[in-house]
Amino acid sequence: MARFERPTTIRFSHCDPAGIVFFPQYFVLFNGLVEDWVNEGLGLDYAALLGPRRVGLPTVQIETEFRAISRHGDAVTLGLELLRIGRSSFTLQLDCRAGAQLRVLTRQTLVSTDLDTHRAQALPSDLLAAMNQFQNGADHA
Amino acid sequence: MARFERPTTIRFSHCDPAGIVFFPQYFVLFNGLVEDWVNEGLGLDYAALLGPRRVGLPTVQIETEFRAISRHGDAVTLGLELLRIGRSSFTLQLDCRAGAQLRVLTRQTLVSTDLDTHRAQALPSDLLAAMNQFQNGADHA
Amino acid sequence: MARFERPTTIRFSHCDPAGIVFFPQYFVLFNGLVEDWVNEGLGLDYAALLGPRRVGLPTVQIETEFRAISRHGDAVTLGLELLRIGRSSFTLQLDCRAGAQLRVLTRQTLVSTDLDTHRAQALPSDLLAAMNQFQNGADHA
Amino acid sequence: MARFERPTTIRFSHCDPAGIVFFPQYFVLFNGLVEDWVNEGLGLDYAALLGPRRVGLPTVQIETEFRAISRHGDAVTLGLELLRIGRSSFTLQLDCRAGAQLRVLTRQTLVSTDLDTHRAQALPSDLLAAMNQFQNGADHA
Repeated sequence: MARFERPTTIRFSHCDPAGIVFFPQYFVLFNGLVEDWVNEGLGLDYAALLGPRRVGLPTVQIETEFRAISRHGDAVTLGLELLRIGRSSFTLQLDCRAGAQLRVLTRQTLVSTDLDTHRAQALPSDLLAAMNQFQNGADHA
Repeated sequence: MARFERPTTIRFSHCDPAGIVFFPQYFVLFNGLVEDWVNEGLGLDYAALLGPRRVGLPTVQIETEFRAISRHGDAVTLGLELLRIGRSSFTLQLDCRAGAQLRVLTRQTLVSTDLDTHRAQALPSDLLAAMNQFQNGADHA
Repeated sequence: MARFERPTTIRFSHCDPAGIVFFPQYFVLFNGLVEDWVNEGLGLDYAALLGPRRVGLPTVQIETEFRAISRHGDAVTLGLELLRIGRSSFTLQLDCRAGAQLRVLTRQTLVSTDLDTHRAQALPSDLLAAMNQFQNGADHA
Repeated sequence: MARFERPTTIRFSHCDPAGIVFFPQYFVLFNGLVEDWVNEGLGLDYAALLGPRRVGLPTVQIETEFRAISRHGDAVTLGLELLRIGRSSFTLQLDCRAGAQLRVLTRQTLVSTDLDTHRAQALPSDLLAAMNQFQNGADHA
């Protein structure tokens, strides 16, 4: 399956008084990965999609397992695979690994919306085409 | 089922360029609700648990549905129910409602850990006793 | 001088691996205080100001002293005083105290902007009138 | 003057309902720059300093001008210069630029503390030596 990856470093600002990543920060990190994937993996302009084009991509469903902790300074890899492409939504599998160790595994469904009405709408045709091409393409790691 | 609730207001800082709550912020809000529940619903000292007593309560599994958007200024109610009490973990159901409208529904499993080793350990006896009492008690809304 | 205050509790999510408030979180807390002040101290609708009315209140200048640390679970009081009202901007003094101890002191200048152009504009007349009334009024603590 | 720079991109998660960077997020970004500077500009291990070595570097004073807005998707450069090295504290000048445009300018004083007592202490000798070398060195841009 096509895979998009980006290395990142766990920052002081991601961590809590227990000295480990505060779990909502993983969702902020994964949100950045989705931005990078749209921009670099799909070749579209994510900021233009949400800004001038007024297409929202809110999350409607997410399930996550936190299997191992991450600490400040850890070098990790964030990965993305595209599990499903629907008419107005798609489902991603996102993970955080340190070497071979799987630390976080999430399955997230995003829906395309009109940012003026916040109602679901068909995925923009360029986004749909780029996702199909990504799905059929080689590894983007 | 026993229920713990707190009203809150959606802040500017919770919202994104789409003008709605950025979903990781719900998890920050729910984390505050869990703190209030431990302090006020269970009558324990949450900060003492994590600080001097070195008991962590990291999240190991979470699944969430985002059913309706929230906007800056919305008055909402955050609610908590205790679905399961295990030996070293427990599962909460958390929700965000605006009046009768269910906006966010989450099921979150937290595990008791030793903050020096980050390993799972039995729930502290006072926390376990207080959760059992909450479970059997009346509404705490 | 007229003063607006709100009590708050330092949350787990405000704190860093050093176990104390991560300083940018104070600015998030103060931003919430400014919201409460506009809504409750001035009697205006802050969310309507920024939403339908498209009036922005970005910060253009801020200076802050962090004099004492705050820890998870601390009960603190956030306070606001209005130092200066200009044509298109105003300056607030914001502080965080625990009992008699001053922990954070900040001076922040906000400017009124048109959210479509992001250019400075005269303060809305109702906001200006309410600030003048606050300035001349009694304590709102 | 020696200068340390890193390019970054403004993320969706940095922006507010006005569509521009929510100002506390700049301080989170600058905190990441300080981490990179310690690790890569000074050649020390920032996470080890705060973790095993228990040396804190909290901010005690900061003053900032926000001169121009940043929007989601903007490519910016974060820069750091070392203004002053004291016995237990040092002062940084941090800025955010987009091309030639200066957007944010901040002056921040950090103090070295013992993370067990949170009291100020002399700067660790390796940090002091590395800062002096940086100060006298060439551009690290």
